[in-house]
Amino acid sequence: MKSDIEIAQEAELIHIREVAKQLGIAEDDLELYGKYKAKISDELWEQVKDREDGKLVLVTAINPTPAGEGKTTTSVGIGQAMAKLGKKAAIALREPSLGPCFGIKGGAAGGGYAQVVPMEDLNLHFTGDFHAITSANNLLAAMLDNHIKQGNKLVIDTNQVVWKRCMDMNDRVLRNIVVGLGRPVDGVVREDHFIISVASEIMAILCLADNMKDLKDRLGRMIVAYNYEGKPVTASELNAVGAMAALLKDAIKPNMVQTLEHTPAFVHGGPFANIAHGCNSVRATKTALKLADYTITEAGFGADLGAEKFFDIKCRMAGLKPDAVVLVATVRALKYNGGVPKDKLSEENLDALKKGIVNLEKHIENVAKFGVPCVVTLNRFVTDSDAELEYVKNFCEERNCDFALSEVWEKGGEGGVELCKKIINTLETKESHFKPLYDINLSIREKIETIAKEIYGAASVTYDAAAAKSIDRLEELGYGNTPICMAKNQYSLSDDAKKLGRPENFNINIREVYVSAGAGFVVAITGTVMTMPGLPLHPAAERIDVNDDGVIIGLS
Amino acid sequence: MKSDIEIAQEAELIHIREVAKQLGIAEDDLELYGKYKAKISDELWEQVKDREDGKLVLVTAINPTPAGEGKTTTSVGIGQAMAKLGKKAAIALREPSLGPCFGIKGGAAGGGYAQVVPMEDLNLHFTGDFHAITSANNLLAAMLDNHIKQGNKLVIDTNQVVWKRCMDMNDRVLRNIVVGLGRPVDGVVREDHFIISVASEIMAILCLADNMKDLKDRLGRMIVAYNYEGKPVTASELNAVGAMAALLKDAIKPNMVQTLEHTPAFVHGGPFANIAHGCNSVRATKTALKLADYTITEAGFGADLGAEKFFDIKCRMAGLKPDAVVLVATVRALKYNGGVPKDKLSEENLDALKKGIVNLEKHIENVAKFGVPCVVTLNRFVTDSDAELEYVKNFCEERNCDFALSEVWEKGGEGGVELCKKIINTLETKESHFKPLYDINLSIREKIETIAKEIYGAASVTYDAAAAKSIDRLEELGYGNTPICMAKNQYSLSDDAKKLGRPENFNINIREVYVSAGAGFVVAITGTVMTMPGLPLHPAAERIDVNDDGVIIGLS
Repeated sequence: MKSDIEIAQEAELIHIREVAKQLGIAEDDLELYGKYKAKISDELWEQVKDREDGKLVLVTAINPTPAGEGKTTTSVGIGQAMAKLGKKAAIALREPSLGPCFGIKGGAAGGGYAQVVPMEDLNLHFTGDFHAITSANNLLAAMLDNHIKQGNKLVIDTNQVVWKRCMDMNDRVLRNIVVGLGRPVDGVVREDHFIISVASEIMAILCLADNMKDLKDRLGRMIVAYNYEGKPVTASELNAVGAMAALLKDAIKPNMVQTLEHTPAFVHGGPFANIAHGCNSVRATKTALKLADYTITEAGFGADLGAEKFFDIKCRMAGLKPDAVVLVATVRALKYNGGVPKDKLSEENLDALKKGIVNLEKHIENVAKFGVPCVVTLNRFVTDSDAELEYVKNFCEERNCDFALSEVWEKGGEGGVELCKKIINTLETKESHFKPLYDINLSIREKIETIAKEIYGAASVTYDAAAAKSIDRLEELGYGNTPICMAKNQYSLSDDAKKLGRPENFNINIREVYVSAGAGFVVAITGTVMTMPGLPLHPAAERIDVNDDGVIIGLS
Repeated sequence: MKSDIEIAQEAELIHIREVAKQLGIAEDDLELYGKYKAKISDELWEQVKDREDGKLVLVTAINPTPAGEGKTTTSVGIGQAMAKLGKKAAIALREPSLGPCFGIKGGAAGGGYAQVVPMEDLNLHFTGDFHAITSANNLLAAMLDNHIKQGNKLVIDTNQVVWKRCMDMNDRVLRNIVVGLGRPVDGVVREDHFIISVASEIMAILCLADNMKDLKDRLGRMIVAYNYEGKPVTASELNAVGAMAALLKDAIKPNMVQTLEHTPAFVHGGPFANIAHGCNSVRATKTALKLADYTITEAGFGADLGAEKFFDIKCRMAGLKPDAVVLVATVRALKYNGGVPKDKLSEENLDALKKGIVNLEKHIENVAKFGVPCVVTLNRFVTDSDAELEYVKNFCEERNCDFALSEVWEKGGEGGVELCKKIINTLETKESHFKPLYDINLSIREKIETIAKEIYGAASVTYDAAAAKSIDRLEELGYGNTPICMAKNQYSLSDDAKKLGRPENFNINIREVYVSAGAGFVVAITGTVMTMPGLPLHPAAERIDVNDDGVIIGLS
């Protein structure tokens, strides 16, 4: 069996100008990065912004399991399959991060015959967006520490610096560091932290900003520290906004690449799915909606985190109206949710499937709460039995969801034609009545509790003392009227990764609360969240190489 | 008077394919980064490598002063002026670093009407080469600390880790840090250091490597630490070479841009001029030599550091044969060397000029020691008197150097025509008998003493105990037979920045010696060398912005 990178490298790519042409984009509106990557010019948006939007379809999934669900693969496959049906469609996805690429994953641009290419570029530097974000993040940090060292006019409390440095790398020793050691000329000593670049607030902002002006306004509002009176100090007060904006001038422009079947793919931005909203950029999604009849996008993690944030943060802020949801599952993952260990997932087990399908059931119910029609798809594995597939199909159809198998990993677009027909049927027969889950003017606690109870199924919510204090302080400072960005483990609907299926009667405990004032949301953290991953014993980096023919190997 | 960025932004650029065409490069051999930047494909080299080389001209300068000499501006101007004379010429320069750009300088791509454009791109991310180097450097660091944390099979002594993390930023608090704090899962605690990316050994390697194979070999030889037995541990032993090479796959390809007068400019690589060799990449220089009749390149700092390393490291390793040197000075800088304070440099002062010109004299003598003919040019200022200019002219011609004024800052290529005529005259009438200064098989001490006495004019050399011990250890480990990369303050021929003119009877003290085994040289440090700069009270970043029309302002 061929590896993902082998399949990707065997593909004959077409020039990106030909891909763009499918969406009516002229070459003048492309900024080429080689023959197969381009950024979309600022001018294009001005030309198309008054057009009517096409249909917006979100691809999301049940809670992730070690069995793998294939959300990105499905999104890419839908894009390819829509073209098989003669439809004008575009996918809008996130960019992969170098950290996981060199850590465990070794790559993230779909899989099998449903991939975005050129996959090496996507998984390495691509068009430099993440590097630009890293630079802007770290320029702000350098200016902050320089301000403190040069007299600290803003009276910043060095024990209350909240801005962290970042790096697009899995590097655990940078989680907790002490900086400024040495002589007085080497700056002021304080504790500091590095996060992975995708966890930078600048990444979240880049993905939410409508345009350069909005980007600058948001950058200016970012809180970098608190002063000795407990008042926030912003990036604007450090005079850092203009230089950050200059660094981000190209990064804010959406990137275009192609799928293995040459259909258009916007790949832009990649905010952390935990302490941020985990969706590709608003700008890319909006551009796709103006140019294509169908825009397929995705959100990080399962629907409890990804779809909820897509709806309550991204769609609410950007004024987007999603028309349908595709909920991805696998028979294997549902059986895993039903208690089957990882090495027994290939055996037919209808009892476990019936037990585990409650996870899917809850996500179907959740999507309905946002008023958006839902299609369910199973990524088919050879070991799935007909009885198992039939059971899931009936289960979904009884719940008023269209259902189709997906075989895009193995067959590319052809393997997604049935699914696309069901998606189109849903779009044509079921109207979306999208609304966010909660009113933005509720108190922070009310909003958190709404999400925890309605979406996760929690019975109660408790708050650590520090979290309660933060909430009071944020509301006092006027940061209460924003959406909530929940940070929770992705493996369970609860805050305990081991509780699979559809847990009940559980409590959600909020450990930490803070505001991302530039992004425009309050982050509520349950449990611990790692914002700087580490490398495994044998990182994927050990297998990645450039061979004697100059070809990159070992990405997957 | 217009600022550099205003002049640059008013320029009408031509498509980079048209620039490349002047050198006979087909569009298929370009990898476009937008309309005005491109990388040169690997295939082009294969096509042209057997051609005869054009002429190679190095632009260097007297010791830098606060008065400013304009080495890059002169290099760009010569490229422009050669075209005015109908000559096929290319310039080959270094890429600017983000650190100084946001620190004091605010930009570095020539000045006035002798600039390389698009200047915003050049000064910000350009084609991402520096980001790639930063990523490769930090991936190696992450893999090193991961190795230690995951069992430390190579028995690395955490007190003898020599590999440092890097960032393309002026950020003084990262000079001395402690990493790995927190819980056991957060890694092993040790002291660490960040350097600016241009000081990374990977930058030096990228600029010296002939091709991907050479690059990988050199990366593999880099010493990251010593084990408890005092034996070096290399990047190769950490299995990090392939992944670093994958990250550098595009960065190794030369970049092409244009001057304000649309002549071709290779801008590639930017190693620190202090602990590294401070020249653009060998690959770019060699490519230019095959395609142009005249290749104009430069080296960092004054001729005592820049030209010496260009000859003894870059030319020696790459087998390059320089044909002429252009030595840049200004009347103001020579008067400053003669003791005139900065605010009195506009007044005619022949006595000070006569006193300070000994600095130029020594550099003329030094260039002759390498067997290369020399042309001297003065960057003309309005305040220079005719008598002053005449004096310098006669001084140079008496020493068998062609001489011409340069007015490229004010007049572009037209202002460099006289200079180019003199350069061409030198190339046609004086043969180069280039030879490096010292035999590579001399001992480390003999090589250091040759440079110190012959080039700097020192009377003696002393060694700190630690430096002496390092030299013995390096020779024992087999690292003795490499060129020496001297790190010395750039403002004086001596190791005391305050000794201007042509100091005599001084001692050079070697404080530290180590090997850059991948780059292939031994670094000898006099005094202290700062490998991570800091920001000034008001960094240039505070003035940089993107205005309402989307135009970057504040770079200079």
